[in-house]
Amino acid sequence: MINVAVMGYGTVGSGVVEVLERNREAIAKRAGEEICVKYVLDLRDFLGNPIQEKVVHDFEVVVGDPEVAIVVETMGGIEPAYTFVKRSLLAGKSVATSNKALVEKHGTELLAIAREKNINFLFEASVGGGIPILRPLQTSLTADVIEEIGGILNGTTNYMLTKMYNEGVDYDTVLKEAQDKGYAERNPEADVEGYDTGRKIAILCSLVTGKKTDFEDIYTEGITKVGKEDMAYAKELGMNIKLIATAKRHGDKMCVMVAPVLMGSGHPLYAVNDVFNAVFVRGNMLGEAMFYGSGAGKLPTASAVVADVVEAAKNPSSSMMGTWTDEKVELQPLDEVCRRFFVRMSGDARERRAAVEAAFGPVTLVEVEGLGGEFGFLTEEMAEGAYAKCEAEVPGILHRLRIEG
Amino acid sequence: MINVAVMGYGTVGSGVVEVLERNREAIAKRAGEEICVKYVLDLRDFLGNPIQEKVVHDFEVVVGDPEVAIVVETMGGIEPAYTFVKRSLLAGKSVATSNKALVEKHGTELLAIAREKNINFLFEASVGGGIPILRPLQTSLTADVIEEIGGILNGTTNYMLTKMYNEGVDYDTVLKEAQDKGYAERNPEADVEGYDTGRKIAILCSLVTGKKTDFEDIYTEGITKVGKEDMAYAKELGMNIKLIATAKRHGDKMCVMVAPVLMGSGHPLYAVNDVFNAVFVRGNMLGEAMFYGSGAGKLPTASAVVADVVEAAKNPSSSMMGTWTDEKVELQPLDEVCRRFFVRMSGDARERRAAVEAAFGPVTLVEVEGLGGEFGFLTEEMAEGAYAKCEAEVPGILHRLRIEG
Repeated sequence: MINVAVMGYGTVGSGVVEVLERNREAIAKRAGEEICVKYVLDLRDFLGNPIQEKVVHDFEVVVGDPEVAIVVETMGGIEPAYTFVKRSLLAGKSVATSNKALVEKHGTELLAIAREKNINFLFEASVGGGIPILRPLQTSLTADVIEEIGGILNGTTNYMLTKMYNEGVDYDTVLKEAQDKGYAERNPEADVEGYDTGRKIAILCSLVTGKKTDFEDIYTEGITKVGKEDMAYAKELGMNIKLIATAKRHGDKMCVMVAPVLMGSGHPLYAVNDVFNAVFVRGNMLGEAMFYGSGAGKLPTASAVVADVVEAAKNPSSSMMGTWTDEKVELQPLDEVCRRFFVRMSGDARERRAAVEAAFGPVTLVEVEGLGGEFGFLTEEMAEGAYAKCEAEVPGILHRLRIEG
Repeated sequence: MINVAVMGYGTVGSGVVEVLERNREAIAKRAGEEICVKYVLDLRDFLGNPIQEKVVHDFEVVVGDPEVAIVVETMGGIEPAYTFVKRSLLAGKSVATSNKALVEKHGTELLAIAREKNINFLFEASVGGGIPILRPLQTSLTADVIEEIGGILNGTTNYMLTKMYNEGVDYDTVLKEAQDKGYAERNPEADVEGYDTGRKIAILCSLVTGKKTDFEDIYTEGITKVGKEDMAYAKELGMNIKLIATAKRHGDKMCVMVAPVLMGSGHPLYAVNDVFNAVFVRGNMLGEAMFYGSGAGKLPTASAVVADVVEAAKNPSSSMMGTWTDEKVELQPLDEVCRRFFVRMSGDARERRAAVEAAFGPVTLVEVEGLGGEFGFLTEEMAEGAYAKCEAEVPGILHRLRIEG
């Protein structure tokens, strides 16, 4: 029997207990022995809940019990999660976590401690929720040089964009509805500004390059400025707007960013809707692959955490999970990144075309019936720096989106 | 340095050599040491090809060389692949193969030998080509009871159906074109009759249940009777037609089948087009997940084979891959499987509706402009056995398709 302590009995933590309970037999078969929750660490008591007798309030009970082999961290946030995880690892306990903020900020150090102690620090659930991606990257995509990784990594914003696309409603309306349904937080900043997505792509980029990628260094643009007018243009173009993260090799550097982009129906991410997530990978031999599933939610996320627990139970003394050093990844300066842009501009398309093309070069115009006083255009491929210069020179630009693929 | 022998220098075998060559450094890093092709076993000589000096014609050279730790089998077919693989395993060499026919027919025995010898028999490339699915199933989806697995497992037929859908051409035209392009064999039976897909779902079902699933026991229907009329109805219904394999739990039994089905745009497989494959998994905790990528092709398939080689190199004495016993899986009788059906019938919809509904129960009629003298209808959910009885009683049925989801 392997004893586990679950730190944080919130949505994911209670999901972990539920998954371990409901699939007890199947999990025991795969892990090689039964996995038993010995403690639940939480500030609350959960009186009347069957978990009640396992609840402890003092982390010292968990870390001081030599019978606890694996610690699950599902508290979220940096502190006290960081201190508890670090001390658990130093005490020789493997850790499985769903906490992307912790992994992004302190993963380098925590991985080093796990390696040093010859135990596991696993975090499959921190990216893509229930979608298996980190372990497949480390154990299945081993014949390839990964040239690009990214995708739709945030369910809240994908739900909002899908709703805006399907129903033509504006951002504020859809945000309020997402909040009412519990899909978006009262303070939605981490989701809608792309910070959550940014932390996840930082983790993916660190794993793929083996070098530390800091969230703070990544260009991150959220969906707060995406309006129903943008969606109308997208439909007119036969395209969709998705908040995507990408980490792409460019020589020795990585081009990493988070932004809402226009994409055509040929792109594998085009049809990923609602709260679903998808991670897109391009290998130099494999070509394109995509991993699709529930990027969040209690049981899907808990399923990924428990899979890490099974892994740690089966291989207690080997760190299968990839790792990265504290050497920082070299990022391609944003100004140098080349792509096509979509621009919305006030005025009349025919009157302004010459001025637009004088600045941006040849463009393709697009107009939407019912959207008066403005028009859209698509540029040819140009560097972000060159685009920014044009944008500063030409008046009347209402919004711009990047075009993917 | 780890020495590998590649048996069969055809499309996949030459791809394996190319992947090992082109990604030599990255692969060595992941495997822990350099992987070197010592022999290529083939009947041909490949004079002038750099591989020439590694070519041997005699399997005894391969099996008799204690320096060869891992054997790659990319010959295809049952013999001599079976004999060579079995003797390699008995000689203590791990084997990686892309050969689905071999795995489906002799996997039980070969897995048992590998377990007995404490080496690896790996076959990621046998299902889904380059898509990592078998290892994620065994190492990532370990917290779930898999309730359903399946998907689009054959690139040739998916290419053909996509073409029929997009261009409205008939089966014979698209088959000829696929043959001319090299996507379909001159004798296309294994693809178009669904046998290839059937072998792959047999392997997936064996892995998921831990019990032997025989291809011969699976109901397999191909795409040879899917006509452009069917596609016209599908479009009218806002649906698509895909050849899918499915293995679904039904109590203690498994419902396993291969058939072309109508599916709506909400289904994750709906947008999987051209030669791409996708494996769909439903776990009792995870919910729906999908793995998408190149299901065939030289380098994608070789990428999966080489990932198995890396796995065998890293873990020479442990059989990570799941396994199944020779106990046979219990299949749900086809007659008992319940679903909705789409039926094409000759005659006039209004005149025949009463007779149709007397037999099939309430139906939804569908007509396509330009398709005179026939109409279509969708039944409510009914058992396959009950449907077959109706079909025998009511004259004028032109074709029927199953409806998924």
